[in-house]
Amino acid sequence: MAAPTEFLTYIDSKADAFIQRLADAVAIQSVSGDAKRRGEVVRMAHWLDGQLKALGVETKLVDLGKHVMDGVELDLPPAILGSIGNDPKKKTVLIYGHFDVQPANKSDGWDTEPFELVIKENGQLVGRGSSDDKGPILGWLNVLEYHRDNQKPLPVNIKFCFEGMEESGSEGLDELVEKESKAGGYFEGVDCVCISDNYWLNDRTPVLTYGLRGLTYFKVTVSGPGRDLHSGVFGRTVHEPMTDLIHLMGRLVDQQGNILVPGVDEMVPPADDEEKAIYEALDYSISDVESAAGGQISLTSNKVDLLMGRMRNPSLSLHGIEGAFSEPGAKTVIPAKVSGKFSIRLVPPQTPEAVNPLVIEYLKSEFAKLNTKNKLEIEGLHGGKPWVADHKHWNFEAAKRATRSVYKQEPDLTREGGSIPVTLTFAESLGVNVLLLPMGRGDDGAHSTNEKLDRSNFIEGSKLLGSYLYELAAISK
Amino acid sequence: MAAPTEFLTYIDSKADAFIQRLADAVAIQSVSGDAKRRGEVVRMAHWLDGQLKALGVETKLVDLGKHVMDGVELDLPPAILGSIGNDPKKKTVLIYGHFDVQPANKSDGWDTEPFELVIKENGQLVGRGSSDDKGPILGWLNVLEYHRDNQKPLPVNIKFCFEGMEESGSEGLDELVEKESKAGGYFEGVDCVCISDNYWLNDRTPVLTYGLRGLTYFKVTVSGPGRDLHSGVFGRTVHEPMTDLIHLMGRLVDQQGNILVPGVDEMVPPADDEEKAIYEALDYSISDVESAAGGQISLTSNKVDLLMGRMRNPSLSLHGIEGAFSEPGAKTVIPAKVSGKFSIRLVPPQTPEAVNPLVIEYLKSEFAKLNTKNKLEIEGLHGGKPWVADHKHWNFEAAKRATRSVYKQEPDLTREGGSIPVTLTFAESLGVNVLLLPMGRGDDGAHSTNEKLDRSNFIEGSKLLGSYLYELAAISK
Repeated sequence: MAAPTEFLTYIDSKADAFIQRLADAVAIQSVSGDAKRRGEVVRMAHWLDGQLKALGVETKLVDLGKHVMDGVELDLPPAILGSIGNDPKKKTVLIYGHFDVQPANKSDGWDTEPFELVIKENGQLVGRGSSDDKGPILGWLNVLEYHRDNQKPLPVNIKFCFEGMEESGSEGLDELVEKESKAGGYFEGVDCVCISDNYWLNDRTPVLTYGLRGLTYFKVTVSGPGRDLHSGVFGRTVHEPMTDLIHLMGRLVDQQGNILVPGVDEMVPPADDEEKAIYEALDYSISDVESAAGGQISLTSNKVDLLMGRMRNPSLSLHGIEGAFSEPGAKTVIPAKVSGKFSIRLVPPQTPEAVNPLVIEYLKSEFAKLNTKNKLEIEGLHGGKPWVADHKHWNFEAAKRATRSVYKQEPDLTREGGSIPVTLTFAESLGVNVLLLPMGRGDDGAHSTNEKLDRSNFIEGSKLLGSYLYELAAISK
Repeated sequence: MAAPTEFLTYIDSKADAFIQRLADAVAIQSVSGDAKRRGEVVRMAHWLDGQLKALGVETKLVDLGKHVMDGVELDLPPAILGSIGNDPKKKTVLIYGHFDVQPANKSDGWDTEPFELVIKENGQLVGRGSSDDKGPILGWLNVLEYHRDNQKPLPVNIKFCFEGMEESGSEGLDELVEKESKAGGYFEGVDCVCISDNYWLNDRTPVLTYGLRGLTYFKVTVSGPGRDLHSGVFGRTVHEPMTDLIHLMGRLVDQQGNILVPGVDEMVPPADDEEKAIYEALDYSISDVESAAGGQISLTSNKVDLLMGRMRNPSLSLHGIEGAFSEPGAKTVIPAKVSGKFSIRLVPPQTPEAVNPLVIEYLKSEFAKLNTKNKLEIEGLHGGKPWVADHKHWNFEAAKRATRSVYKQEPDLTREGGSIPVTLTFAESLGVNVLLLPMGRGDDGAHSTNEKLDRSNFIEGSKLLGSYLYELAAISK
């Protein structure tokens, strides 16, 4: 059962108002990883709660307690639980999204102010969070607005779960999901889950995602001097923490992307021919990767190897160093305490619990080889397991039908390189199928400068979400 | 001829007022390496010019033109030339100092606001520039004030040369010094030079410095992606600039401080027993180094090796990375363009001209071995030759006598690890002896957090500067 034509034309007719609402959402600087902006994340929660209430959703804000970030104890932003419809004859879908965003400063290289949505002539809506994940959340608001304005009942019952800490490890959410998934909990009766948070592979083919990599994030600190030192006065007299840290970071990954921590790559069984055929079939090429990356820098010219590197193999990225000289210009400092940041994307059967001890042991052993008098400290900042789902389930089938109906295309079935740890929590706690139904494109630049969502993805994507609900209602369990 | 007792008591009696003047100078945030604070450097030039004029010095501000810093064209701050006394029967000394300072933010780890001078109970005057180099410059003002207030003629003629770009490569100064050193130039008739800018080895023994290391500073940029990328989406699909840069930076220096660029360490002849005896004699121990560094992190337990590491061997320090994630917290970014900063301190016979080609060739060759598709760019940010002077010259003898008179101690004769490139320019352009006469202590933390100058060093140091002028006047050429 396709969505009513009236719904599709309604979405088109309201496009400008929907984009204005997206601009309002982007303007709230809800950066969960920045202690100074924690209040903005809370403000974003209240803004979204107000929108949901106005559209007929019963909501409650859930206090997730406190956490320590960068040595400061902070209140976690509230999660939002919502419910609309309670018809026992209808299926119930649980929808997840997040209203926090990655950090962004114009000085990082943005062409425009990151928190002012800019509508470009080519239809791109540029702003932090446009694609990750405010656009998708607002897609659901658009669907609700049709039903309210036209006094139509929704084809399914919906539960919402929106959080404000996804970009910073989803602190507190696992406990909430586990609690509300139990008998008598808020999520009782949920038949399937739809996660609204990720992207197409390319800029032309819609995608349904059935796998995600996990993550384990490390902060490795080397310290020694009591304070920063003058390199003229102390150069070649003391063990410099930067020298040690750089040597250590240089032993984690090689130029071909191989992880040098013994046992980590080896945990993952090699792909057989049948699995390789899946990657061969995807509508994705080396040039798509390089176009999305903005440079001819692919690790390999073999498409299958490249896609497996993203989807079914682990990866290790060096993100940066805290405490060293990072500004423009020349400063002749020996930094006293420097912290290298890196993370490993995990795939089954890897878990943070299995991988972290290998990383910690390796770092300690390599540090010992340096024969330095400086001190090493290793912290795991956050992590999450990888996830793989059954993509032949009726939940996926409904999404396939909706995709064909809106985009007149067969969706690519993908595993994704990114991490949305709560996906696995939903799957394990509820015991139901979880689907990732992306709105944005592979070149949206989530977590990057000049993040954008194409207008067509926002509008057609809203139609897709609504159509998915109608297909869900119609499909046999 | 020692300084008049009246002079010494005058300095003591005015100590509080002198410290207040230092507080006024520290409050001007004259950070030459920060384009946004360039106006503060200019303001500092005008403040100092006003002080000099009020003390009877004829001055002129010299426009040094423009330069490009971090891609922006900026006016250089003016240099200040000054002259007081014109008696052909007296010697003429040229005094150099700088009124710009290193960057400082409280968030770097300062206990107090860096640009507010704090007088601690233990007598430390804490603030950026207190020791490097506003305190020493103000020491000269203190000497002038005695002579003005008491209507005493100075024992020598003085020329001043103060600059505002020392912490950023002394841009424009070499040309000025070379021009004014020629016949008919401002420095005509100068008999010797006194540089007021460096520190004692320890916290108890005054020092005269007869050698300085040179410097060559590099910025090595690796780029590839068109923008920052999401490590989930792109990890293990593209060549990551951070991976390449970290590998490259890891091949520059080892844990024992050996420079891995072939030919650089090898340029310096080994010390013979006679030279080693000089270092053995200095009042400086391993525990002095570790106390000044604030950690038990010395590279060696051999005092002579340690002092030679600082004074007569080159060193390579890794300062940091621009463009990578450098803030607290966890960000899963693959930075698109990262620039490693490092510098090499040079000793005779090394020069930037001789060393730079070796570094550039080595970096290119090591980068080629990485077999990456990313791009490498190497820039030399600034540099200067090392310098060694004749420490048996009458200029040094006068300073020795002044030290004995004020401190009742024999000064240590040292070569210093830091770089003051203009020292060599003065020596070569004027063809006269150049002396470094430090005011501060080895633990002052120049270029570091919580920079301080001890009250006793400021006050006794002002006496030392004045006494040096009287000894200069009396000594035979």
